[in-house]
Amino acid sequence: MAVQTFASTTDSANTVDLGPAAALSCRECGHRVPLGPVFACEECFGPLEIAYDFSDYDTEDLRKRIEAGPANIWRYAPLLPVPADVATKPNLNPGWTKLVQADNLARELGVTGGLYVKDDSGNPTHSFKDRVVAQALEAARAFGFTTLSCSSTGNLAGAVGAAAARAGFRSCVFIPHDLEQGKIVMAAVYGGELVGIEGNYDDVNRFCSELIGDPAGEGWGFVNVNLRPYYAEGSKTLAYEVCEQLGWRLPDQIVVPIASGSQLTKIDKGLQELIKLGLVEDRPYKIFGAQAEGCSPVSTAYKAGHDVVRPQKPNTIAKSLAIGNPADGPYVLDIARRTGGAVEDVTDAQVVEAIKLLARTEGIFAETAGGVTVGVTKKLIESGTLDPSLTTVVLNTGDGLKTLDAVAGTGLTATIRPSLESFREAGLV
Amino acid sequence: MAVQTFASTTDSANTVDLGPAAALSCRECGHRVPLGPVFACEECFGPLEIAYDFSDYDTEDLRKRIEAGPANIWRYAPLLPVPADVATKPNLNPGWTKLVQADNLARELGVTGGLYVKDDSGNPTHSFKDRVVAQALEAARAFGFTTLSCSSTGNLAGAVGAAAARAGFRSCVFIPHDLEQGKIVMAAVYGGELVGIEGNYDDVNRFCSELIGDPAGEGWGFVNVNLRPYYAEGSKTLAYEVCEQLGWRLPDQIVVPIASGSQLTKIDKGLQELIKLGLVEDRPYKIFGAQAEGCSPVSTAYKAGHDVVRPQKPNTIAKSLAIGNPADGPYVLDIARRTGGAVEDVTDAQVVEAIKLLARTEGIFAETAGGVTVGVTKKLIESGTLDPSLTTVVLNTGDGLKTLDAVAGTGLTATIRPSLESFREAGLV
Repeated sequence: MAVQTFASTTDSANTVDLGPAAALSCRECGHRVPLGPVFACEECFGPLEIAYDFSDYDTEDLRKRIEAGPANIWRYAPLLPVPADVATKPNLNPGWTKLVQADNLARELGVTGGLYVKDDSGNPTHSFKDRVVAQALEAARAFGFTTLSCSSTGNLAGAVGAAAARAGFRSCVFIPHDLEQGKIVMAAVYGGELVGIEGNYDDVNRFCSELIGDPAGEGWGFVNVNLRPYYAEGSKTLAYEVCEQLGWRLPDQIVVPIASGSQLTKIDKGLQELIKLGLVEDRPYKIFGAQAEGCSPVSTAYKAGHDVVRPQKPNTIAKSLAIGNPADGPYVLDIARRTGGAVEDVTDAQVVEAIKLLARTEGIFAETAGGVTVGVTKKLIESGTLDPSLTTVVLNTGDGLKTLDAVAGTGLTATIRPSLESFREAGLV
Repeated sequence: MAVQTFASTTDSANTVDLGPAAALSCRECGHRVPLGPVFACEECFGPLEIAYDFSDYDTEDLRKRIEAGPANIWRYAPLLPVPADVATKPNLNPGWTKLVQADNLARELGVTGGLYVKDDSGNPTHSFKDRVVAQALEAARAFGFTTLSCSSTGNLAGAVGAAAARAGFRSCVFIPHDLEQGKIVMAAVYGGELVGIEGNYDDVNRFCSELIGDPAGEGWGFVNVNLRPYYAEGSKTLAYEVCEQLGWRLPDQIVVPIASGSQLTKIDKGLQELIKLGLVEDRPYKIFGAQAEGCSPVSTAYKAGHDVVRPQKPNTIAKSLAIGNPADGPYVLDIARRTGGAVEDVTDAQVVEAIKLLARTEGIFAETAGGVTVGVTKKLIESGTLDPSLTTVVLNTGDGLKTLDAVAGTGLTATIRPSLESFREAGLV
């Protein structure tokens, strides 16, 4: 993909205030460029990410600032690419979701060291995407964009539409034209432009890349393309929240779903930052990646001992994780191996079973992606890969209401006439 | 309905620890009975409600205790019928949902005094029902019940199933057998018993009343029947949160949906308590009730100047408000008149329009009940009944994902081929 520069915004790029964000830095070669709406290194085409200046932070001051902050991701504004006054701007203010102490699930799985579910279905549009979109939106504001855009097959479309509405941006979201009607409604209700593309998700993505290079796309912030370096940082807040909610302590083990792999790499980045800043004690932690068998390119590479990820054609009910060619796959492999974690996958049947297990034990109705992480956790315990005597955190990144079809077989226990006699006959007492 | 006594739990009723709850008191005649799973006065058949002993509270101490409490309804434990250590028990921990400063909506509606949406879709199962069920669950625990039950047509079934799962209770929920499949799935996924009754919602209710009086129902806590006095108190937390989130200040005006009317009466009770406890300045406030035209018995009585409410047969898309014979209707009329508020209704078309308005301006996708409150707010401003120069709070009590059908007409702005030419032809730039 060609590196894009933006004539209309280049001037502002050097003067934008994005708090501690100092520059963009290439993950591959380290080349630095000023903050701007660019995502690939002009030297080596590697991915750009945010380089921060945290040098003048005092640990205790920082901890107090965070703890006194709002009950959303902006409590971590000093560690994010956002201006210091970000909490005063119109934004959906996601985050600070519940870290549920899952004692019932722990009993079922035999976990004795403490099991927690980080439940991101509590976000404004009920998925973790609100975290990343909130970051992209603030970058879009800083760069003077007036339209927020993305390619999507579901969760992201709603998150962008809702965030744009709150912030007073125009939105224009591109989806495959034949998406399920329910998903179209969830994205369309926010009133932005919702454009169906005659083609599959790859066609939608290709079109968006074309549009970014065209005058028609001028002034447009594509959250997961030209704003990707900012967008991706939103996932760090999952790591921050988990540690703060554990009492400023690293989890021993954390199980993270893999779509592009970006979330997992940013959670690792977030944990590393907390260690360097002295906010948590420097102890070992293990990161485990979770995929559905029907789209398991990273798990396959992990098990084969490969460093590269061979693309797959997705075929799984876990559609929000169905990225067959995950951009951050190699980084995920590196992190899983470096931390002593692993990457594992489960079948669609195991995903459904895990959704029901989590609902039955903890009253949390997870999206298919949550079924993947819970299912993988179970499998890793059974295989002895995950240590049940250690503190373990499992991410649920979405909401079961958005993937009702996955558990459509669930139904009535019994049907009775409105009489005690009929009730007794049903054998329920 | 006959008054029930519970042989199996009468002994414990006098010794239960439900914090500041001192007794049950009849709303009509004032007759007091010990705390127990009863809901109607043995003297006059009036509704029983909780009588508290708040006498030893120091205002500043109390404020500090609340502010240092958890980010959920248990921060208000000193004002609720729950033991002091309630936050340590397994519970869904709902509440402390966002009070959204709705500046975009305010501009559209011409509100200049500050407009806020209290967004209860942020609760664990995405409706305000989590608040009331959490209270009922703690009462059930105190009374030694082991099964949590209810009659429901939707939101309540899921809230009870989820709460019971987390708390380790058995659950048995009764619904009309021909509910939409999606609603059945949302309730069934938590793994409790879900019993379809061959009949309508009235038949379901009648059956539950029978079951309570039968040995088969022994040890069962019906959240909205024999635990109703405790259950209903959960709505007070909406009033507490709104005031605390406004900086310990009463709203000037608040718009509340009416189903049974219980929520509105308890919000008034909560505001009165805050005034008496000195937590907010004693100033006038107005409470407005909102109904759908297709189920508007209270609004009809209000407009006719009646003190009694004549039952209606519901016919509206706002199914979570569709109670044709609202038990607390007369109390709602009294409160609306006493505070200088009003009761108003909107058509189903206006409900849909209001759902879209709220989504488009604030990125909040409300259930039909939220469309009712926003639509009524608009209508009350247009008629000059609601003063746009005053601070106004509108409740959204549920989530649009649960009533997708209401906005099923919402769809794609355009369908194009994956080319810039096709994009330009669509006239979107």
